[in-house]
Amino acid sequence: MENTKIPYKIYLDESEIPTQWYNLRADMKNKPAPLLNPGTHEPLKAEELYPIFCEDLVAQELNVTDPYIDIPEEIQRFYKMYRPSPLIRAYFLEKALDTPAKIYYKFEGNNTSGSHKLNSAIAQAYYAKKQGLKGVTTETGAGQWGTALSMACSYFGLDCKVYMVKVSYEQKPFRREVMKTYGAEVTPSPSVTTEIGKKILEEFPGTTGSLGCAISEAVEVATKSEGYRYVLGSVLNQVLLHQSVIGLESKKALDKYGVKPDLIIGCAGGGSNLGGLIAPFAGEKFRGENDYRIIAVEPASCPSFTRGKYVYDFCDTGMVCPLAKMYTLGSGFIPSANHAGGLRYHGMNPALSQLYHDGLIEARAVEQNSVFEAAEQFARVEGILPAPESSHAIRVAIDDALKCKETGGEKTILFGLTGTGYFDMTAYEKFNDGVMTDYIPTDEDLKKGFDGIPRFEGNEI
Amino acid sequence: MENTKIPYKIYLDESEIPTQWYNLRADMKNKPAPLLNPGTHEPLKAEELYPIFCEDLVAQELNVTDPYIDIPEEIQRFYKMYRPSPLIRAYFLEKALDTPAKIYYKFEGNNTSGSHKLNSAIAQAYYAKKQGLKGVTTETGAGQWGTALSMACSYFGLDCKVYMVKVSYEQKPFRREVMKTYGAEVTPSPSVTTEIGKKILEEFPGTTGSLGCAISEAVEVATKSEGYRYVLGSVLNQVLLHQSVIGLESKKALDKYGVKPDLIIGCAGGGSNLGGLIAPFAGEKFRGENDYRIIAVEPASCPSFTRGKYVYDFCDTGMVCPLAKMYTLGSGFIPSANHAGGLRYHGMNPALSQLYHDGLIEARAVEQNSVFEAAEQFARVEGILPAPESSHAIRVAIDDALKCKETGGEKTILFGLTGTGYFDMTAYEKFNDGVMTDYIPTDEDLKKGFDGIPRFEGNEI
Repeated sequence: MENTKIPYKIYLDESEIPTQWYNLRADMKNKPAPLLNPGTHEPLKAEELYPIFCEDLVAQELNVTDPYIDIPEEIQRFYKMYRPSPLIRAYFLEKALDTPAKIYYKFEGNNTSGSHKLNSAIAQAYYAKKQGLKGVTTETGAGQWGTALSMACSYFGLDCKVYMVKVSYEQKPFRREVMKTYGAEVTPSPSVTTEIGKKILEEFPGTTGSLGCAISEAVEVATKSEGYRYVLGSVLNQVLLHQSVIGLESKKALDKYGVKPDLIIGCAGGGSNLGGLIAPFAGEKFRGENDYRIIAVEPASCPSFTRGKYVYDFCDTGMVCPLAKMYTLGSGFIPSANHAGGLRYHGMNPALSQLYHDGLIEARAVEQNSVFEAAEQFARVEGILPAPESSHAIRVAIDDALKCKETGGEKTILFGLTGTGYFDMTAYEKFNDGVMTDYIPTDEDLKKGFDGIPRFEGNEI
Repeated sequence: MENTKIPYKIYLDESEIPTQWYNLRADMKNKPAPLLNPGTHEPLKAEELYPIFCEDLVAQELNVTDPYIDIPEEIQRFYKMYRPSPLIRAYFLEKALDTPAKIYYKFEGNNTSGSHKLNSAIAQAYYAKKQGLKGVTTETGAGQWGTALSMACSYFGLDCKVYMVKVSYEQKPFRREVMKTYGAEVTPSPSVTTEIGKKILEEFPGTTGSLGCAISEAVEVATKSEGYRYVLGSVLNQVLLHQSVIGLESKKALDKYGVKPDLIIGCAGGGSNLGGLIAPFAGEKFRGENDYRIIAVEPASCPSFTRGKYVYDFCDTGMVCPLAKMYTLGSGFIPSANHAGGLRYHGMNPALSQLYHDGLIEARAVEQNSVFEAAEQFARVEGILPAPESSHAIRVAIDDALKCKETGGEKTILFGLTGTGYFDMTAYEKFNDGVMTDYIPTDEDLKKGFDGIPRFEGNEI
């Protein structure tokens, strides 16, 4: 079973940490559709984004031509704090499944934020600092992004205001304390600290919140406060750019041992991990150098790819953000309260949406009890307690490895293990106690999310 | 500031994980005093320990002659799941302190148990399995040992019954869920499931529990259940033996870069981390090959080294375990309820006690507010949220690095970062909210712990 040539954990040298991010969009034949001004429905100019985002980040957001972008030295230095992350050969899991498949996973949870989110957080904080800002605002769902941003802001001495989806705020009290330890200010969303928050609370007094709503609050505060800008942990193309370090390191580690994955699997909420993991592989695929099957895994309770529409939609519930063309459940969609963990965003990154539309990546939706079964099995044999988000990818990796067993196929599987589940024990407790429930939205449920989406040329809803 | 030759993180190759444990006692001139039968006060024979411990572990416990003991292959394989652990050069901390000192730390928190405890848990589970046992019982304080043992037992398919100190059980509800995810049965101690638990609850109805008491319960269950033995995560010499992998890896990593630490700092509760970290360095010291200053750091609220007595004492509150000669606060000692985290054991490993008695290691006691200040400072610059236990070592490392700054001395400091604080956010919350309190026991408080210790020749109390 054991290939003695390949170690359990492949660590690159510090000198092999990428010094450039890879910009997937530069190699895409069909570029993602441009962001639109929500009022005029015209493509957004950079200047129109400056009140919301840092200037350098706007440039990265709109850059669809440069394949490589230098990583500033200060960010490279910070990366050395926790990168390179290990690429792990899942020998223990392979043995437990008794599969001929060879399974690898890139583990991004070995840092205090507990996930890959730190890769982009430090970049966004860096550019905010460079622009001379006082601080940044953001939203967080499961809390990983907020924690990552708190760490990054603490490093650069920036203020950090985090709007945390209320249901997560309540399910994860300790996340708040980690953020506070790093000096952040954390507010459950919707809140009365913003106009949009007050409005949503009036309309839906019992709401458990949503990412879209928390985004609206964070954007409002950023645009109304002197010296603040808004930053986002997923969905945007700039975030995928920063997250390309995941894929670049994975590929370099596999190349060292001459390993080519047949199947690449990543969980997908807004797309930051998936987009980062697949970046250099997808690049080869576009350029016709190599072929890979790529699978996005999403929760059945928040199925943007598998049941969403490919239309222009707001990135936020408050409908103040630009319009992005993406697979979306509608910016009015709020996942069922029984949904645990992250992956609760209504939309999907525009570049990934384009790839899915073009048939270059596949998608699967999985239910959460089956996800936690996979999580527990993985934890017991691989010794890492995975985040619920990451466990979506584990579920599909296990399913496909078991298929290999049936067919005798010796596929090589690579999946992204985005983070750890130490702050998700409320969800694990439900699963341990057998009271975790599944939820698949009905078509009627889904229709509601599209109420506020603008009808204009090219937006067939 | 930055020595470009030494990376931020030194990872050994998988092939460099130790294949033998180093038995510190073999090189000690003054051997630790033997364990005594609590009834006869005569040195214990191996057979007398068999009802409590696995036979192979008894042999390791009593072995003061073999300097190296082979690590069984199955344990070596498991070590590959999370070892080698990184040795980290604290460049960020050095910069923040503006110190000429060079600081290194061995980080043992990069596994789901969150600490070094897994190094011994897997060994003890292995020998239990080898002996054909059905399961093991144990106690846990902060919960790290219980988690580690749950993981190890799950790997070998052994039953795992954990008695968790009540105050920790209440402060750390999520720890329980991690253990349950790994299939363990967790009971808050003292409990009504044992005779000794009932007795203690009658005498002290409001007690928050102690490690000594939880040990008594676990031992009672092990000795009364067919096919069970008791295992312990610290204090015992066998545990220090297994933990020597920490020091062996640290030394190998430093040797690669020709670095010799002047000062080695470890937190000390029962001594497992400290003993493991210093093992190969202390060996060189005994053999006159090299000199190192070694500092044990303990909480001012549970100051076994700095305020305890070097006498024979019970390892447990119930006084059913063997007598060990050690620095102890008395087996009746229970730390103040305001004490957060681990390092709450009344005694100290016998070998380390002998070394301290012989002046070969030093000890310092630190108060918890100052410990959490160090923890926060460390977290913010090094990006790792440390366990409260580990933060005791951080406190002294920072203090000594600042002294170097005053004197201009370029000392090299190595400390053990035993684990992460993800399950200690209740304590961090208290610190963040400014309501954490310090506690130094009075001499009167300390006297009480010695009430039940036997008076016999050589035991001056």
